Amino acid sequence: MKEIKVGIIGFGTVGAGVAANLLQNAEVIAKRTGVMVKLARIADLDITTDRGVAVPPEILTTDAGKLIDEVDVVVELVGGTTVAREFILRALRAGKPVVTANKALLALHGRELFAAAEAANVDIYYEASVAGGIPIIKALREGLVSNRIHRIYGIMNGTCNYILTRMENEGADFAAVLADAQKLGYAEAEPSLDIDGFDTAHKAAILAALAYGRWFGLDPVYVEGIRDISLDDLRYADELGYRIKLLAIIKQIDDDVQIRVHPTLIPKNTLLANISDVFNGVLVEGDTVGQTLFYGRGAGRLATASAVVADLADVALNLSCGCARRVAFREGAQFRAVTGMGDVQSRYYLRLTVTDCPGVIASISQILATHDISISSLIQHEKRNAGDQVPLVILTHSACESRLRAAVDEMEKLDVVRDRVRIFRIEDI
Amino acid sequence: MKEIKVGIIGFGTVGAGVAANLLQNAEVIAKRTGVMVKLARIADLDITTDRGVAVPPEILTTDAGKLIDEVDVVVELVGGTTVAREFILRALRAGKPVVTANKALLALHGRELFAAAEAANVDIYYEASVAGGIPIIKALREGLVSNRIHRIYGIMNGTCNYILTRMENEGADFAAVLADAQKLGYAEAEPSLDIDGFDTAHKAAILAALAYGRWFGLDPVYVEGIRDISLDDLRYADELGYRIKLLAIIKQIDDDVQIRVHPTLIPKNTLLANISDVFNGVLVEGDTVGQTLFYGRGAGRLATASAVVADLADVALNLSCGCARRVAFREGAQFRAVTGMGDVQSRYYLRLTVTDCPGVIASISQILATHDISISSLIQHEKRNAGDQVPLVILTHSACESRLRAAVDEMEKLDVVRDRVRIFRIEDI
Repeated sequence: MKEIKVGIIGFGTVGAGVAANLLQNAEVIAKRTGVMVKLARIADLDITTDRGVAVPPEILTTDAGKLIDEVDVVVELVGGTTVAREFILRALRAGKPVVTANKALLALHGRELFAAAEAANVDIYYEASVAGGIPIIKALREGLVSNRIHRIYGIMNGTCNYILTRMENEGADFAAVLADAQKLGYAEAEPSLDIDGFDTAHKAAILAALAYGRWFGLDPVYVEGIRDISLDDLRYADELGYRIKLLAIIKQIDDDVQIRVHPTLIPKNTLLANISDVFNGVLVEGDTVGQTLFYGRGAGRLATASAVVADLADVALNLSCGCARRVAFREGAQFRAVTGMGDVQSRYYLRLTVTDCPGVIASISQILATHDISISSLIQHEKRNAGDQVPLVILTHSACESRLRAAVDEMEKLDVVRDRVRIFRIEDI
Repeated sequence: MKEIKVGIIGFGTVGAGVAANLLQNAEVIAKRTGVMVKLARIADLDITTDRGVAVPPEILTTDAGKLIDEVDVVVELVGGTTVAREFILRALRAGKPVVTANKALLALHGRELFAAAEAANVDIYYEASVAGGIPIIKALREGLVSNRIHRIYGIMNGTCNYILTRMENEGADFAAVLADAQKLGYAEAEPSLDIDGFDTAHKAAILAALAYGRWFGLDPVYVEGIRDISLDDLRYADELGYRIKLLAIIKQIDDDVQIRVHPTLIPKNTLLANISDVFNGVLVEGDTVGQTLFYGRGAGRLATASAVVADLADVALNLSCGCARRVAFREGAQFRAVTGMGDVQSRYYLRLTVTDCPGVIASISQILATHDISISSLIQHEKRNAGDQVPLVILTHSACESRLRAAVDEMEKLDVVRDRVRIFRIEDI
């Protein structure tokens, strides 16, 4: 049986998971593929710490360059966008296919890396970069290849989804749940990459590249995180039939593409709204297939390893067939332009804190009318607390973001409007 | 650009969908794959009926044999297990890769067809045979290839799911909903293939083959359909926190495999229980990835075409790379034996109709105790109607099917037990 030698650069959590999976399941994979995917080398600066996986000590090295020379395929699990990029470029130039889980690197340097792969006539596989164990890259690149993609909605950050689920279930506020999530290891000590939406934005840029044939980079991706979601917002959303999720939204409207990441109200009775805790889900709507949804663990040592090793099996089949670049992704834009956020059409949820006095609703609805924004529902409950401030929640029909912003600016200038107006977008899926 | 010539045998609903997709999206597919997938020939006995798709008339032929000779890849959409089998074997022997949506043929003759494909060193692709547009074959064969598969649960028959959803939502009984579904075109005039579970069984046999490396045929697949599900059962299930779905269950317990299709109570709060109407969903649990779920349209002209054309793209990439048999499926059993239904362990829902008199619950629970079956919950409501008969619903803890059957046989002999005892299995997912 043909054997391919795998070298892993980066023996952290995911690296250890990949090693464990290969040690445990290489035989099953060989039965299925006809190729033995063999763990041959692991490089890391630290090769003494116990990672809880019984790799033969002689395969460990601190010399990543030597590893690249010795193996048939290089798995980059260093992370970050500096040395990881160099290792990948070096492997590609040496004619070695690369498997990576590095979403930030692909989002930022995808074009350069894929150009290098093309020049060297080798492949880069990256299933683990988006939604962990869910084979969404393969689904979009191959399973749905016959579709023009109309929309993608992704819940792709487990930390955010975990925090929102707990806020909802426990009625606890953001700061308290974040602190507890950090204690439990579900959120990083420096949580900004997750909770401010950047991690989801990296993944959105990768899915958008597959859907529309261009490495967009991050510049055209609009990003908002979940820090501003209050318990009140979750409760009003619930009352109105919605849940709030941090959603990546990738859409083609006419010939233009939108890529955005922000908290979004989605109807409670949809499958997507019922994806909770650390789980991820990606809804893909194609012109031919209609709506499909893919669900599973978006992170974690083993789930991520599942995706990395699936890529290794693809590489193994390629090498054993003597073929490269057998993959349904080539750059070649399938759209006209990226829509700026000001031109996006959306429905909106607005929460205002207003003085409880006559004429308030009249003034606010007048401003919306002036900007041609139509109200679809409005809640003002009786005052719960002492004081003269009450919340007013408005859902709008579809409106243009720049008009909505202008209307909100005007509202915030009214004496009766206290505090900032909270704005969340709504998708009806 | 390399071009591959596609020939479709069978110009029915799906054939027309595939033709429409190729005519509309071949250019996008070419941008993505670098290969032009060209609709070259369509064979059918009837080439005069208008199928609502504007294919060039000169590509139509009544001669399937000539088509096989002329094209690079053959799409078999004839259906059935007679001529379809002959066309496929003929194409394979002529060295032409085959794409098929024919679940019955694969379930029954998979081993023969794949042996012929191996002998000819060409491929058979069959994404459309299971769950329509959902790329579940690719997910299981490639995306989750690094996993030992613990369990698969599939809602894979749109007709059954549609009927059960309507019964539940409208409180209408099976016969009424079936009749209406037939009128609306959601159920066939001869509905047995769907509602008696055979269609789902075909699909289960195919997924089991991928998961465990053997073409099982249908013999080891236990099958029950949905005819016996009454509104009462749906209501009691609901009261107990469950929904009833027609589920394909494929499981490995220790080294043995179970393949079964039957109505199953699953917890209401799971994603699987919330897959409704004609939609399909497949949950796959692997040792490495954990639980994943795949959702979408399981049937219909376009959804099925999406899967067929995805296979064509795979074939196109293979042909353009000059590789064949680059696929992660080889027969080679990854299990010990198939568990007979009598040895299956399950939880059970039992609904009895009993005489409302003292000692009934005592006698019935005594029978269960004698057979070492433990009760997890029991409902007996006050009598709703006149008469002396009341329903008694029992949920059991896990028990062996043969013991459960023996216990039920004894119960049915009691004077106080009227009518047959209804038995449904429970999966806690």
